[in-house]
Amino acid sequence: MALLSTCVANSMTKGSWIRRMFEAGIALKQEHGENAVCDFSLGNPDLPPPSIVADGMRKLSDTLDRPFSLGYMPNGGYSWAREALADHLSREQGLALTAGEIILTCGAAGGLNVLFKAILDPGDEVLALSPYFVEYGTYVGNHNGIFRTVPTATDTFSIDLDKLEGALTGRTRALILNSPNNPTGQIYSREEVSTVAALLKEKSRIAGRPIFLVADEPYRFLAYDGAEVPPLLPLYDFAVIAGSFSKNMSMPGERIGYLALSANMPGRDALMNGLIFCNRILGYVNPPVVGQHLMRAALGCQVDAGIYKKRRDAMAEVLSAAGYNFLMPKGAFYFFPKAPGGDDVAFVNKLMQHLILAVPGSGFGCPGHFRLAYCVDEAIIHRAADGMKKAFFS
Amino acid sequence: MALLSTCVANSMTKGSWIRRMFEAGIALKQEHGENAVCDFSLGNPDLPPPSIVADGMRKLSDTLDRPFSLGYMPNGGYSWAREALADHLSREQGLALTAGEIILTCGAAGGLNVLFKAILDPGDEVLALSPYFVEYGTYVGNHNGIFRTVPTATDTFSIDLDKLEGALTGRTRALILNSPNNPTGQIYSREEVSTVAALLKEKSRIAGRPIFLVADEPYRFLAYDGAEVPPLLPLYDFAVIAGSFSKNMSMPGERIGYLALSANMPGRDALMNGLIFCNRILGYVNPPVVGQHLMRAALGCQVDAGIYKKRRDAMAEVLSAAGYNFLMPKGAFYFFPKAPGGDDVAFVNKLMQHLILAVPGSGFGCPGHFRLAYCVDEAIIHRAADGMKKAFFS
Repeated sequence: MALLSTCVANSMTKGSWIRRMFEAGIALKQEHGENAVCDFSLGNPDLPPPSIVADGMRKLSDTLDRPFSLGYMPNGGYSWAREALADHLSREQGLALTAGEIILTCGAAGGLNVLFKAILDPGDEVLALSPYFVEYGTYVGNHNGIFRTVPTATDTFSIDLDKLEGALTGRTRALILNSPNNPTGQIYSREEVSTVAALLKEKSRIAGRPIFLVADEPYRFLAYDGAEVPPLLPLYDFAVIAGSFSKNMSMPGERIGYLALSANMPGRDALMNGLIFCNRILGYVNPPVVGQHLMRAALGCQVDAGIYKKRRDAMAEVLSAAGYNFLMPKGAFYFFPKAPGGDDVAFVNKLMQHLILAVPGSGFGCPGHFRLAYCVDEAIIHRAADGMKKAFFS
Repeated sequence: MALLSTCVANSMTKGSWIRRMFEAGIALKQEHGENAVCDFSLGNPDLPPPSIVADGMRKLSDTLDRPFSLGYMPNGGYSWAREALADHLSREQGLALTAGEIILTCGAAGGLNVLFKAILDPGDEVLALSPYFVEYGTYVGNHNGIFRTVPTATDTFSIDLDKLEGALTGRTRALILNSPNNPTGQIYSREEVSTVAALLKEKSRIAGRPIFLVADEPYRFLAYDGAEVPPLLPLYDFAVIAGSFSKNMSMPGERIGYLALSANMPGRDALMNGLIFCNRILGYVNPPVVGQHLMRAALGCQVDAGIYKKRRDAMAEVLSAAGYNFLMPKGAFYFFPKAPGGDDVAFVNKLMQHLILAVPGSGFGCPGHFRLAYCVDEAIIHRAADGMKKAFFS
């Protein structure tokens, strides 16, 4: 007797490579012991939250005897939380934002779902540059949109403007830019995003309705060697940022994120009302209350990005020593090297024989590569050196 | 330039009566002062969380210096949280449940969305008894289902079996039972739900696929005068409970709820995998981590239901003294009296002239009544006595 809807049953069969590696990893750890396995499969930040997060939680716990301390609040989040974040983002983006341009959401994932629900008519298209974060497709599909991808340039993963232009149609409603990028570690330059903005402006004019530029930026704080992550809100009137505190404050489990609209967007009040409405009707109801308090307590603080940089350098050394072909990540905490031999699934299986967990590029719409997440202790990276070498030469 | 999808723009125009009253209330309070207005419009519990919730939060704050303290966990929630809740619900339901029958969700609202995404094919129908909680319709619509309502018996709001039977079709996929009921305060008896279960079993057999019985039970702990809220999981193989800790622990803002499947459901493992998958892809990703800790710390505790009972009795006195026609609520924290004159919207406007906020029954698919939420200080109920009388006679 079929209990599941056809759509969900089918999606589950296709599955997620990240999930599959996660499960393979559990089996491998049970067989060989937790410490024998070098697990680079998941983007779950291992650094504890900045200590100011714990201070914020202690302070909050002293106020719980008040009525409504953990009660409902407006569907877009507390106004004090929206205001604090507006101030913070005004500085970050170089554009004056108010609470009216900010909605707090159940993580950036919740934010993207709220946005797509609010802006997509059935059949509207959302574009992402591949390789891409695998959940974008489901988020768009949830709201009857059509998800399409545009390849980035081979080797550099930079934006291929001609291909992007070719992919834009009269039904394109949004383009997602994920920078610093998961899985490639690429950061799009100011010049690149300015050209994209100009292209979207022209195509919006032709289509007679705006194409949104959606900046998914959970890794903004992780840009190495002084690389700039150009702010998009001042650059394009229909830009929307989807952000979260999952990575910079190491609290992905509490599900606190946001959407921020450009203060130059005509009609943004109506859009914001729609986003708040969708936060309610999609069953999020409101962003988690504790997360809002922790966010305000820690706003402007973050985990030590220097630790991630050291790990990046260590992993680069391991990969270079073994002979892998890879692009040095400019940001985020992933490497996306070429799979020796070209078959990413076969190569990831080979890595598993050496007790190393990675994710095939196929899981990001980009076969022939594999992803290594280095949000793990540096010792694990060094320990993987031998296995990485053996897998390369076997 | 239209920024919103047609569907969302249309839904927003219809709006929510609760929301409209909320906004009217803000204006009224600004004009007359916060304390002059008797606000019975919102079901936002005013009792502080049980003190054990604060203890749980303090303990958690001492562990945040550990890696992954607020990290991602499996999409269905921590296994310790699912196990603790399975133990608790086994006692409550009188049926042995394991973690495999439990998923933690972003509130009961998140749970219902996850369930509908998992089980509804486009065009599948979901039934609710009217009057009903107004969000059910949007939750079903989010996942391309069709929402239909069946009236309960006039005056008693008990289940009208003939009408229910007439409303069941070959496309019916689920029936929602909300008991204790928002807005009526009615509790369906063991006899009533047993008859419904038998009917659904027979109709499932004819349709060739199971019709789910969805018990939305956030008010289970609030049953007065020894009334029984009969457990549904042992009664029907395809029963699903949607529950939360929003009301019994006064923490609706933290968004922690759950779905529990009957341990007698054939194929429940596949369904549970689908629910966990939907928790992920709908952008909830996982239930808020802090909420899971608070839930475990406080499981089995609750706010003092005796306070709500005193308020119920006070409101009953106010209504009786003025001459209103109403059913004494058996549970939850709402009254649903008849609107004098029959026009609920006109009468609610009249109440507003006396600085009393209520919600028209039209907002619950049941014109001719109005809802009063008594999760407010008892003094406010007494203070409303005069206005309730004047509105009745004007």
